[in-house]
Amino acid sequence: MMEEILKQLQNGTLSVAEAKDQLAPYENLGFAKVDHHRKKRQGFPEIIYGEGKSAEQITAIMEAIKAKGNDILVTRMNQEKAEAVLKQHPELIYNDVAQILYWKQQTETVQKTNGYIAIVCAGTSDLRVAEEAAVTAEVLGSKVHRIYDVGVAGIHRLFDNLEEIQQATVSVVVAGMEGALPSVVGGLVSHPVIAVPTSVGYGANFGGISALLSMLNSCASGISVVNIDNGFGGAYNAVVIDRLANKE
Amino acid sequence: MMEEILKQLQNGTLSVAEAKDQLAPYENLGFAKVDHHRKKRQGFPEIIYGEGKSAEQITAIMEAIKAKGNDILVTRMNQEKAEAVLKQHPELIYNDVAQILYWKQQTETVQKTNGYIAIVCAGTSDLRVAEEAAVTAEVLGSKVHRIYDVGVAGIHRLFDNLEEIQQATVSVVVAGMEGALPSVVGGLVSHPVIAVPTSVGYGANFGGISALLSMLNSCASGISVVNIDNGFGGAYNAVVIDRLANKE
Amino acid sequence: MMEEILKQLQNGTLSVAEAKDQLAPYENLGFAKVDHHRKKRQGFPEIIYGEGKSAEQITAIMEAIKAKGNDILVTRMNQEKAEAVLKQHPELIYNDVAQILYWKQQTETVQKTNGYIAIVCAGTSDLRVAEEAAVTAEVLGSKVHRIYDVGVAGIHRLFDNLEEIQQATVSVVVAGMEGALPSVVGGLVSHPVIAVPTSVGYGANFGGISALLSMLNSCASGISVVNIDNGFGGAYNAVVIDRLANKE
Amino acid sequence: MMEEILKQLQNGTLSVAEAKDQLAPYENLGFAKVDHHRKKRQGFPEIIYGEGKSAEQITAIMEAIKAKGNDILVTRMNQEKAEAVLKQHPELIYNDVAQILYWKQQTETVQKTNGYIAIVCAGTSDLRVAEEAAVTAEVLGSKVHRIYDVGVAGIHRLFDNLEEIQQATVSVVVAGMEGALPSVVGGLVSHPVIAVPTSVGYGANFGGISALLSMLNSCASGISVVNIDNGFGGAYNAVVIDRLANKE
Amino acid sequence: MMEEILKQLQNGTLSVAEAKDQLAPYENLGFAKVDHHRKKRQGFPEIIYGEGKSAEQITAIMEAIKAKGNDILVTRMNQEKAEAVLKQHPELIYNDVAQILYWKQQTETVQKTNGYIAIVCAGTSDLRVAEEAAVTAEVLGSKVHRIYDVGVAGIHRLFDNLEEIQQATVSVVVAGMEGALPSVVGGLVSHPVIAVPTSVGYGANFGGISALLSMLNSCASGISVVNIDNGFGGAYNAVVIDRLANKE
Amino acid sequence: MMEEILKQLQNGTLSVAEAKDQLAPYENLGFAKVDHHRKKRQGFPEIIYGEGKSAEQITAIMEAIKAKGNDILVTRMNQEKAEAVLKQHPELIYNDVAQILYWKQQTETVQKTNGYIAIVCAGTSDLRVAEEAAVTAEVLGSKVHRIYDVGVAGIHRLFDNLEEIQQATVSVVVAGMEGALPSVVGGLVSHPVIAVPTSVGYGANFGGISALLSMLNSCASGISVVNIDNGFGGAYNAVVIDRLANKE
Amino acid sequence: MMEEILKQLQNGTLSVAEAKDQLAPYENLGFAKVDHHRKKRQGFPEIIYGEGKSAEQITAIMEAIKAKGNDILVTRMNQEKAEAVLKQHPELIYNDVAQILYWKQQTETVQKTNGYIAIVCAGTSDLRVAEEAAVTAEVLGSKVHRIYDVGVAGIHRLFDNLEEIQQATVSVVVAGMEGALPSVVGGLVSHPVIAVPTSVGYGANFGGISALLSMLNSCASGISVVNIDNGFGGAYNAVVIDRLANKE
Amino acid sequence: MMEEILKQLQNGTLSVAEAKDQLAPYENLGFAKVDHHRKKRQGFPEIIYGEGKSAEQITAIMEAIKAKGNDILVTRMNQEKAEAVLKQHPELIYNDVAQILYWKQQTETVQKTNGYIAIVCAGTSDLRVAEEAAVTAEVLGSKVHRIYDVGVAGIHRLFDNLEEIQQATVSVVVAGMEGALPSVVGGLVSHPVIAVPTSVGYGANFGGISALLSMLNSCASGISVVNIDNGFGGAYNAVVIDRLANKE
Repeated sequence: MMEEILKQLQNGTLSVAEAKDQLAPYENLGFAKVDHHRKKRQGFPEIIYGEGKSAEQITAIMEAIKAKGNDILVTRMNQEKAEAVLKQHPELIYNDVAQILYWKQQTETVQKTNGYIAIVCAGTSDLRVAEEAAVTAEVLGSKVHRIYDVGVAGIHRLFDNLEEIQQATVSVVVAGMEGALPSVVGGLVSHPVIAVPTSVGYGANFGGISALLSMLNSCASGISVVNIDNGFGGAYNAVVIDRLANKE
Repeated sequence: MMEEILKQLQNGTLSVAEAKDQLAPYENLGFAKVDHHRKKRQGFPEIIYGEGKSAEQITAIMEAIKAKGNDILVTRMNQEKAEAVLKQHPELIYNDVAQILYWKQQTETVQKTNGYIAIVCAGTSDLRVAEEAAVTAEVLGSKVHRIYDVGVAGIHRLFDNLEEIQQATVSVVVAGMEGALPSVVGGLVSHPVIAVPTSVGYGANFGGISALLSMLNSCASGISVVNIDNGFGGAYNAVVIDRLANKE
Repeated sequence: MMEEILKQLQNGTLSVAEAKDQLAPYENLGFAKVDHHRKKRQGFPEIIYGEGKSAEQITAIMEAIKAKGNDILVTRMNQEKAEAVLKQHPELIYNDVAQILYWKQQTETVQKTNGYIAIVCAGTSDLRVAEEAAVTAEVLGSKVHRIYDVGVAGIHRLFDNLEEIQQATVSVVVAGMEGALPSVVGGLVSHPVIAVPTSVGYGANFGGISALLSMLNSCASGISVVNIDNGFGGAYNAVVIDRLANKE
Repeated sequence: MMEEILKQLQNGTLSVAEAKDQLAPYENLGFAKVDHHRKKRQGFPEIIYGEGKSAEQITAIMEAIKAKGNDILVTRMNQEKAEAVLKQHPELIYNDVAQILYWKQQTETVQKTNGYIAIVCAGTSDLRVAEEAAVTAEVLGSKVHRIYDVGVAGIHRLFDNLEEIQQATVSVVVAGMEGALPSVVGGLVSHPVIAVPTSVGYGANFGGISALLSMLNSCASGISVVNIDNGFGGAYNAVVIDRLANKE
Repeated sequence: MMEEILKQLQNGTLSVAEAKDQLAPYENLGFAKVDHHRKKRQGFPEIIYGEGKSAEQITAIMEAIKAKGNDILVTRMNQEKAEAVLKQHPELIYNDVAQILYWKQQTETVQKTNGYIAIVCAGTSDLRVAEEAAVTAEVLGSKVHRIYDVGVAGIHRLFDNLEEIQQATVSVVVAGMEGALPSVVGGLVSHPVIAVPTSVGYGANFGGISALLSMLNSCASGISVVNIDNGFGGAYNAVVIDRLANKE
Repeated sequence: MMEEILKQLQNGTLSVAEAKDQLAPYENLGFAKVDHHRKKRQGFPEIIYGEGKSAEQITAIMEAIKAKGNDILVTRMNQEKAEAVLKQHPELIYNDVAQILYWKQQTETVQKTNGYIAIVCAGTSDLRVAEEAAVTAEVLGSKVHRIYDVGVAGIHRLFDNLEEIQQATVSVVVAGMEGALPSVVGGLVSHPVIAVPTSVGYGANFGGISALLSMLNSCASGISVVNIDNGFGGAYNAVVIDRLANKE
Repeated sequence: MMEEILKQLQNGTLSVAEAKDQLAPYENLGFAKVDHHRKKRQGFPEIIYGEGKSAEQITAIMEAIKAKGNDILVTRMNQEKAEAVLKQHPELIYNDVAQILYWKQQTETVQKTNGYIAIVCAGTSDLRVAEEAAVTAEVLGSKVHRIYDVGVAGIHRLFDNLEEIQQATVSVVVAGMEGALPSVVGGLVSHPVIAVPTSVGYGANFGGISALLSMLNSCASGISVVNIDNGFGGAYNAVVIDRLANKE
Repeated sequence: MMEEILKQLQNGTLSVAEAKDQLAPYENLGFAKVDHHRKKRQGFPEIIYGEGKSAEQITAIMEAIKAKGNDILVTRMNQEKAEAVLKQHPELIYNDVAQILYWKQQTETVQKTNGYIAIVCAGTSDLRVAEEAAVTAEVLGSKVHRIYDVGVAGIHRLFDNLEEIQQATVSVVVAGMEGALPSVVGGLVSHPVIAVPTSVGYGANFGGISALLSMLNSCASGISVVNIDNGFGGAYNAVVIDRLANKE
């Protein structure tokens, strides 16, 4: 790509300013530089991480993204900030379990197969992270099946839902405490497994380190791991894979 | 699948013994239970982790796998043990940088696209892990492009090879020290990035924890992580994705 | 007990010296104080931890124990030291996988049931620790069933051996890497599970911490944990429970 | 068991649906899958971990369990949530020191001996965890003796209560700070000791890690450990052992 | 210096009291010993760390410093305490993003070049720390350029501002999460880089340890590191270097 | 001592009950066992750690101690609980910086020298811990000199007060952040130094671990360390040494 | 710079190939990409980190660098590998304390002041790291004063050499164990202090973490830190500052 | 002291050179600055830490110390280096268990009481550290009683030796594994207890951290702690206390 831009510059097709703009396009809001190039570069527009940003900052970034005709996805968005934003932008939708605020245009991607992402979680306490993953995947354009509360302490519940998991294109497996579920799932499927450790637990759980280490040390192959409680990251990886396999 | 087997059992198509065998097939060598079911369940035959096993144990497991007509892949195999095995099985091939011993039959998979896996590494000290990834991917049937020594301290080297990385189906990015390379690559590509931290470094590197944490905390999306020095695991994940996208 | 001794002292049945001896009986070898009281107090004679002691020291302690008519059990005993001791005491038996040296008298305990201890292990690399547990339990007088290489990556191997595990009085479950096996077993049995983490693994395994944390954070009930690689400790706990349930 | 079900299926005694149900019975509440099989599989009905669940969720799960005629035990239940549940279910009992809500039917188990569980704790700050253990054990059907505030800084208090501890079937020893008490008790009794580290302390106590490491590294045999502050887990293990030794 | 004072003492130019005072001058406020010697010894008057001190204590120390004709700089000063101090000293200025309260006299240092400090930060969440650095540097007499929100996930934003960074005398680079930005900047400039890790992030970020380790393990040369969130420290180091290069 | 009691028992001078009472005397309040033996065994009556105990519990324990004619010392006592206790016991004295509540009888110990304890602290933020140490030492009967705010960043303040420190019998040196002060003091005095790390600091300070490790690794001899923020423990050790050297 | 190259490309002054070369110049040795651009970009040619590279690899990289007329600096070079390289390149110089192999051309930089770098170290065990710093600085063209064995346990040794340290342009302060020396030096000088923690020590030293944390938490201003044992990094930072202040 | 020197300087009693020498006396061996002032300042001559120093360096430092008529104490001295030094200095004595090399002149201190130091250790594996403490204390002039192998797993062995411990002036208590012994001893004596954690153990022992944390978190008062395996440090502290109490 760089080579082409350089050639166009040499040919006079592009000015120096245009060349610089094509290499580095973004919008400077002062406190933030909105990355309008991301959809071209990565396949999805910039996604807003809501934690640590004020409702005003989020609104400003969001409007800059929307003005370019892109979809909106804000994660880690608490009720209070969501409501502040919704007053000005009632067209947005808020999911309070997933803590996600979003706005989505019509049909972007064409499904060429029946593939879907399986979001699997171990216990009811992992729900918030599992829903962050599920809603993220749906907003980014994938089909999702939810298989919840199938942790290894009652493993027959997993086996009863095994075929639905096995037929998915990719699984996102969410678990806290000892984080054993991805190892068991990983040994039973032939597709990629994205493991998401959660901070659920207490004592020697250390805010999710126990589950994180379990997943990194899994004896099963085909498992990769994202950060603790990072349901969004788990889903994003799954969606990228789902696109490779199932979209036009 | 379970339901079908149960039905066949009910219909008399299967005996109880056959039903049990289909649900749980393996070969008991005494010190090990070789999992012949894995190829059906996961798409690849059982792979042997060489560390901590004797040349005799490895030979026995390997022969059991080969007797079923499966390919052989032994990782973490040092020179000495490899030579002991090669004496009896000269048909095997040993790669001493990757520490891999393997044997591969002819054409298994049909490539339906031009897709390949990019194996990217930061420095020359990460070579052993990068090669474990590259050889693993090749033995498991994928095409591989190697882009080595493109760490962030001289980032123009990365940019000069960027198009080759961007056109891959999936990248395996190997880095030690501060482990920044996957974040930079992750921000520049639209495909999945599997990050492999290495134990290369000293001092506050803590045997690879520094790179591992960097990768888990990456500000770029689309990155998932495997265990420290786990080149095999990085490749395995990439091959599974490569199959979804590029194989028949 | 203290009260009785005090009364006997008051009655003149015991002298001050005898009273002191009953409260605190041991043999002073200078470098060690051999605890002859332990069998009365804890049900088993003193067991020798071989690591960090010389063959001479071990022989001296052992002879003091044997002179009182007690059985001998030395753990963490490498080949070289074992041979040095065996030269002088050929009546001892050495198990080199378990790294245990022992000597056992005839029939001590009467089995009142068919109960046994199940020693379950995840992979062939965990064998050394599993055998330390199995041999310890046998020397201390329990019946043992070994169920090895049934880790969660190929969980059908576990299910195929499940009934043998479920019918045990108590299980010792040995696992390294992600240490998920005790959670799965713990959810399927109604008896106590003693979990033994091993240091098997690499990278973010941290010498067994990964498995240790998994076991401490298990979502299944009825699991308690001993130190990393402590096969002896796992077995000792199981034997004490086995005595309560199955011995006269 | 699996074999029997398969045979009954083959004989036509069971339908496929019945066979599946016997292998994997649970009730799907949507947000949770209640495991009605647990009593058969593990000897006790499903126990509810209250933390992180709403009063409504707890009530729903509880009613599903009770509808099957099972006892109710909810742990980590704060005053506020307990009162919300009690409004609808005044037949439940709440213990605010132990933070346990429960409901218990009449005579389930027949005591065949005088055996009991000793709940031993080091200091008054460990009371909450010790009571969680004591109440759990009582609700699960065991006899309990409480021996509190006998930490090693004033070891004569322990010795004065030693006989009561020694005559127990199994001890649960609860301690924070340096966690030395289980080692001392473990050296003085012949029965199993379940050690429960607490997070009591400050500074280099690290939320209970100090006590946890002490207990894992105990020089005394016959000690196994559960998670920090896990009074419930300590008791559950003790009750399972108590059943083996003392119940019909 | 000591030698001169000793000589003056010998010559009678100084009394013993004067000699002691020159070696150790400070003002004792009882709860604090204000170090009036610091400007002579280190080039800047004593700076007040506001956290953990009451508004009264800060006011007293501040007045002692001001009475000697020195500038005032108070860091980690929250809104509430700042307002309490401002009531009595309205001549002070408060910057609420940087959490800094200060008072500055006229022209102290003469700029002999066009040199400036580049304050570079990765994301909008790092703003507080970056501003602490920027305001500190300005109050201490340096010129500052702010280059914000140029993290590695959208690296073209960095390249677009590269020349401004490269022409600085020294850079302070602030980043949280994986902390990769200083490595990339360090490989592209020829001046010193002071790296400031921030606690921004979640999960395996561990309050900034992830970024701290990245920076300590940087593969680029010319980077040194200060404590997590220590914007003040980063700026102070930069100002000292700026003085060496650009001031008279 | 045991021997004497046994002899008196044998001689009939003591009854069994008296013998037991002399070996193990305490008062059982139900929730606590008050250790009235401690003054005889350790030289000081039982001291109450206030944190985690209710005002009622503290009052009850305190009254039991006072009833035996002993002094009262309650540490970690916040304002609110202190006031609750003071309502019923206005004869007690509360020091709110040290968070200590106490009551002290007249002349217990006779000072045979001019010895005193030096309480040295690094910064004003360490005051709370330093005062806990100072007040504890005074209540336990020692003379105390306070030398505060003499941290190593302005080391001339330390040197100006050096003689007062050097002439003490023992020093308690309190420091947070990098905890360097005890090493410097330790190299300049010939008496014992008790080092008390504090949790003062931020970022990579980890709640006092930085200072704790510094003190444990001190290159100076004659330094021993107590727990983080444990001003009481530092003082207690110093008082015991002060008694050996300076009291009759 | 980018802008200029783009303009020259547009003007026809540069071809596309030349433009690419100016943006990204390096030499591809296959196993390594030698960065010939570094001297222009960073002021020094590429420096070779010797650890983990073979003598052959080092020789090849070195020859590529020398062929461009650049100086050679190889760090972490053990005796054996150094001798292997010296056989072919006897013009190189090897310093075995510093473990550095180098080759230096004549007069590169003109000293415009009398400035120098003070290399200060705490104990004789820190010598290796201090010499790595000193030799690195000299090879990179700076004047160096060595002030060794002046640790805080005998602080009069530091004070006796204080003026030499105070008059330096920048100090590199090397210390292991508790790492207190940089804090003391930092409080006494007005120039930048680069702190280098060493792994010297034992027990709770944790391979240098104790010193590292001390330095990061220093109560003195003007201190920045490099990785454990990174004498090279400390020197490199100092040389960059020395150039700003003292070179033409 | 400073004041007196300054006065003498003023009076002409001292020259500037003499004054400087009295403030900062040491001997510069180039690689080391031997601190001849230490005996005056701290009560003992400089002690040599042998680890990481060559036999030649040790000999040179030793000879400088001996030339001033001081005693010699070298710790952490392995057999090989000791023999190298002994060849030249056969008057020295080597203790191979304690790894100490020393030379001691006649009667320095006059014992004014019967006081002694109790060196108490938990197990035979802790012997090396205990002997380092015992020999150090003897060489520094104290009387020592050794009470070994009295760990808490057989606590009657401790009680049988309790009176000998209680009558000491100060105890040094050495323990590995769970490190419980100092807490038990601390609760039974009225003198200072110096606790020395050892690295003895395995698994979750972490090279002595388990014991270290136990000792720092001890529930008993009057305990202070030195670094892991630091038998020398434990003894040094005890000797300083012993001098205060028992010497003229």
